[in-house]
Amino acid sequence: MLNTALQSDLSALVQGVNMIWVLTVTFLIFFMHAGFAMLEAGQVRSKNVANQLTKNLLTWSVGVVIYFLVGAAISTITGGLTGGGSYAVVDAFAAIYMPEAGAAAAWVNWLFGAVFAMTAATIVSGAVAGRAKLRAYVSYTILLAAVIYPVIVGFTWGGGFLSSLGFKDFAGGVIVHAMGGIAGLTAAWIIGPRMNRFNDDGTANVIPGHSLTFAVLGTLILAFGWYGFNVGTSASPLALDGSAVVLGSFATVGRVALVTTLGMAAGAIGAAGVAIYKTGKVDTLYVANGLLAGLVGITSIADAIVWPGAIAVGILAGAQLPVVFEFVEKRLHIDDVCAVFPVHGSAGILGALAYPFVATSFWSGSASFVGLLVPQVVGVAVIAVWTFAATALVFGALRAIGQARVSRQHEVEGLDTSEHGVDTYPEFGGPDESSARVDG
Amino acid sequence: MLNTALQSDLSALVQGVNMIWVLTVTFLIFFMHAGFAMLEAGQVRSKNVANQLTKNLLTWSVGVVIYFLVGAAISTITGGLTGGGSYAVVDAFAAIYMPEAGAAAAWVNWLFGAVFAMTAATIVSGAVAGRAKLRAYVSYTILLAAVIYPVIVGFTWGGGFLSSLGFKDFAGGVIVHAMGGIAGLTAAWIIGPRMNRFNDDGTANVIPGHSLTFAVLGTLILAFGWYGFNVGTSASPLALDGSAVVLGSFATVGRVALVTTLGMAAGAIGAAGVAIYKTGKVDTLYVANGLLAGLVGITSIADAIVWPGAIAVGILAGAQLPVVFEFVEKRLHIDDVCAVFPVHGSAGILGALAYPFVATSFWSGSASFVGLLVPQVVGVAVIAVWTFAATALVFGALRAIGQARVSRQHEVEGLDTSEHGVDTYPEFGGPDESSARVDG
Amino acid sequence: MLNTALQSDLSALVQGVNMIWVLTVTFLIFFMHAGFAMLEAGQVRSKNVANQLTKNLLTWSVGVVIYFLVGAAISTITGGLTGGGSYAVVDAFAAIYMPEAGAAAAWVNWLFGAVFAMTAATIVSGAVAGRAKLRAYVSYTILLAAVIYPVIVGFTWGGGFLSSLGFKDFAGGVIVHAMGGIAGLTAAWIIGPRMNRFNDDGTANVIPGHSLTFAVLGTLILAFGWYGFNVGTSASPLALDGSAVVLGSFATVGRVALVTTLGMAAGAIGAAGVAIYKTGKVDTLYVANGLLAGLVGITSIADAIVWPGAIAVGILAGAQLPVVFEFVEKRLHIDDVCAVFPVHGSAGILGALAYPFVATSFWSGSASFVGLLVPQVVGVAVIAVWTFAATALVFGALRAIGQARVSRQHEVEGLDTSEHGVDTYPEFGGPDESSARVDG
Repeated sequence: MLNTALQSDLSALVQGVNMIWVLTVTFLIFFMHAGFAMLEAGQVRSKNVANQLTKNLLTWSVGVVIYFLVGAAISTITGGLTGGGSYAVVDAFAAIYMPEAGAAAAWVNWLFGAVFAMTAATIVSGAVAGRAKLRAYVSYTILLAAVIYPVIVGFTWGGGFLSSLGFKDFAGGVIVHAMGGIAGLTAAWIIGPRMNRFNDDGTANVIPGHSLTFAVLGTLILAFGWYGFNVGTSASPLALDGSAVVLGSFATVGRVALVTTLGMAAGAIGAAGVAIYKTGKVDTLYVANGLLAGLVGITSIADAIVWPGAIAVGILAGAQLPVVFEFVEKRLHIDDVCAVFPVHGSAGILGALAYPFVATSFWSGSASFVGLLVPQVVGVAVIAVWTFAATALVFGALRAIGQARVSRQHEVEGLDTSEHGVDTYPEFGGPDESSARVDG
Repeated sequence: MLNTALQSDLSALVQGVNMIWVLTVTFLIFFMHAGFAMLEAGQVRSKNVANQLTKNLLTWSVGVVIYFLVGAAISTITGGLTGGGSYAVVDAFAAIYMPEAGAAAAWVNWLFGAVFAMTAATIVSGAVAGRAKLRAYVSYTILLAAVIYPVIVGFTWGGGFLSSLGFKDFAGGVIVHAMGGIAGLTAAWIIGPRMNRFNDDGTANVIPGHSLTFAVLGTLILAFGWYGFNVGTSASPLALDGSAVVLGSFATVGRVALVTTLGMAAGAIGAAGVAIYKTGKVDTLYVANGLLAGLVGITSIADAIVWPGAIAVGILAGAQLPVVFEFVEKRLHIDDVCAVFPVHGSAGILGALAYPFVATSFWSGSASFVGLLVPQVVGVAVIAVWTFAATALVFGALRAIGQARVSRQHEVEGLDTSEHGVDTYPEFGGPDESSARVDG
Repeated sequence: MLNTALQSDLSALVQGVNMIWVLTVTFLIFFMHAGFAMLEAGQVRSKNVANQLTKNLLTWSVGVVIYFLVGAAISTITGGLTGGGSYAVVDAFAAIYMPEAGAAAAWVNWLFGAVFAMTAATIVSGAVAGRAKLRAYVSYTILLAAVIYPVIVGFTWGGGFLSSLGFKDFAGGVIVHAMGGIAGLTAAWIIGPRMNRFNDDGTANVIPGHSLTFAVLGTLILAFGWYGFNVGTSASPLALDGSAVVLGSFATVGRVALVTTLGMAAGAIGAAGVAIYKTGKVDTLYVANGLLAGLVGITSIADAIVWPGAIAVGILAGAQLPVVFEFVEKRLHIDDVCAVFPVHGSAGILGALAYPFVATSFWSGSASFVGLLVPQVVGVAVIAVWTFAATALVFGALRAIGQARVSRQHEVEGLDTSEHGVDTYPEFGGPDESSARVDG
């Protein structure tokens, strides 16, 4: 009897302790919105800063409500449908709207999921900066939060067919980041480049962002939040094994923390190295974005790779950044303003596909290379195709009805004036002057 | 015997786990000072930025020492006196200065209280920006930290008469935010508007802040810290029930986390909606301040309302922002620079008074509407009257002796030069030019 | 048997709970890099901002990899060698590279150590801003992370001879901060002042930083992270006492939290007081840096002093800041751009030497003044001499081969252009204009 009493004791204890951790890391991941806001604001022209900031605020505000009302249940349903079973639609919504009285953690877990969803959503705004209509962007965000992202979660974390197949994405390197990067690239492609971004002969003009300081601040806020994103995905520090408390996902948390750190560091080093190789100088923005690309690269695999692999994946993720950025710009002629594809898209894909090379299970001989590789290739392909198709459909439709992009005049004036009626820096030179100086 | 040993075990365990949580959220709430600093700095002219930043630094530095030496004990004494009992003055101070050796948590709990107190204090500086004398402001902060705020805490959380009455303020929507907003409005009224803020015919001139980027950064830092503020007020994750560990305040933490999220999001949406309705454009600062107003609105009631109520309260709190701001500006002719009354004052009052409409206890039939409403009306009235009276007295006295406000010349030059001897942005246009350009 | 089972239960429980805390505070300490980046960026000219930001990014990225590959093991070896025993070199590296399978916490603890190491490293960049070559700085960072800092940790926290002697440094006021401050001063001395910083007659010119807003933002981020730094050093909230869970280092965590708060606040007040005394105005940067100096002063002793002592040490640490800064500038003619010696160096030394005056053990009569003082004097002296000698050697060698400093032309242009090929604020006045205006 005593034993029973204790068991119940420890169950509430484990739940409470785990919730402390989940809430703490959820707050850190939420704070990544400040990181994205600063990173993107710093990389756009001063006449478009308020527009970028507003998009970030509305991504969270509109998106999280939609994800509560619709998206989370869609994940559950998709997971059930594609996972070999089926799922009662009403139950899926009821589990979000009216969790059982005893289920203290249901809404905590929802919020933990929501901050991942909103990370995917906010990545897109960096790609379409400086010319997307606010309404177009918000419309896309609503669909992303309601359906596009939840379907991917259903396929994977929600127990769907990619999960059954063995697709590995620990903390969302593909599900969140590659998804956001691919969506951003697709949207930027459909919506077209900013004026004067490309010349008639196909060469590109650089339109520098207005503040490297804000961009680096954003980078460091993101890195801070990323510890929540990755290490926090070890979301059940404790577990019950019969009546005994044991380490749950914290059994591997040291690896996640180490690998995240090394991957991030190696990403910055890789990007810096390529910058030096190409220009002899260490471009600040490449270092910052390389650090983020290293984080992205490691995110899908951080709990299950050998640490030298983290250094290798990080360096590659950082080093591919300038190369892929140039490819997108000079070959595809897509104006991905904040480099979201090289940072989130290709780096996320790279990390997922690198998994077999660096997996602890491969090096310990407990898994075969091909057995690890196939689900990664399938998973990346499915998520990429779905994201591309859904995003192309939405932005294609918006373009078809003339709602995707602001007018030429509004673009010249800057979106701060035309969409928001504000001047971000009224004392530091008006939008007209600066547009004359740099865009003209 | 075993049982006894375990019980004592688990008591230290519960205390340790709970302190981890309280300390973590305390740090988050402390970080809100960075949020207020950025939000306010962004909303003032460049010639007054350093002044605003210094006020924020000194609010914390001076205020927290005073709150330790005086304020915390005043709360205890006020709570005892008005709670039907009385309280030994010496004991109240001794409990802060010399907690018993075994009471590891006493100073942790003091700091948890202190970060709430300092939030109330720092709100005021945004209302009186650009013309209050630094010494006047610091003098008021000292009195706020020593007496004005502690008395309110004594009435409520400290066990005083509003607590006995059943006044509900979960995390300080009224006690902290409405208090700060009302104090700010009162101070701004007494001290008078900035030069050129109003014309002789009573019409108002807009004096735009110098950086929306800093303002939005501040908003997002505040939202991050607010998760600590609200969710953290579920401050005892675990509890002991006899010898069993049970969820303490974490039994409702999922509701707090959800409601805080929805209220914040709805606030941004509500303010954006009104902005579109009025001007056809989405004013960035309205969205940001609306998000904050949604948070304020939900703060007093976050553990005990149905979630659709959070959306409703959030939308209203956001939507009232532009309306109340205009009322304060155009009817009251008060120059509340950073809109602290609409954001913290009226939104906080709105949330507290909305409680009966959205309370879980009302919807479950376990409480009557009127029974819920009356304590809210009384509580809001008492706190509003006390705050107004005390603030009016202090700033009225400072004005009477000519110490409330800087000279006209200093105001034109900017407070950075006159009060601090610095230039915030020495390379981006001096204070003279900018004042000529915008204020002149 | 039941008892045994429970004991093992609680061991995993204690480990898991402690790791939640250690990881949380580790993330906060990591975030201090954003604080240093902003604080330093704000204090340099706009033409050198990207350089400062890049240094901060690379300090972390390069340094943390080196600290993993080399530094952590060097600490262990140094601790073993100077602690009276010896240490197997291979074991020291193996404990980092390949901790036993069961040792879930080994890499968590490594990361906890690494964020302290990287704090020491990043301090240096503020002293040598505006003229150090990026390669020189990175080379020094590699040596700091591999050897210079790890040797100090070996002497102290690693169990070496200063530890045996009784040297007290709770959270790194000397080991981290004074070390960084002394290293910065040494490097700034060897590398020489910025052009036009001093006139031929020995008088000094002020070269104001480009943004007080970023500097204060950085200060507040640092203060936020510092709660992790100090309070987090109470790193074992729980402990096992036989089969009973007891409070571990959380038994004194309330004192650490209180003392950190009071020390920080008193530092700002002390610096503000001296500023008023000297100029009649409250210099914003003095208040901000004074707040940090108060934190530094308290860091080495925060778990073991009476709280009035925290106020005293904080005020002194803040008050010495303007005095020491002037001494460094006007007597030593060293160009310590971001005042890292007054903030981190002299304040850290002051706090450590003040220990006997304010120690709880002294006031309770359980320790003698001299017995407390001697180890502090010896510890400070050893760390200061080692840091000075190692730093002078490295920067002396770099100077000897002409690699310490950029060319005069590059310095005039600004390091952003010459080292990084970027313009931090392309829309807000180019580097040329601003250098003409202020430096010329």
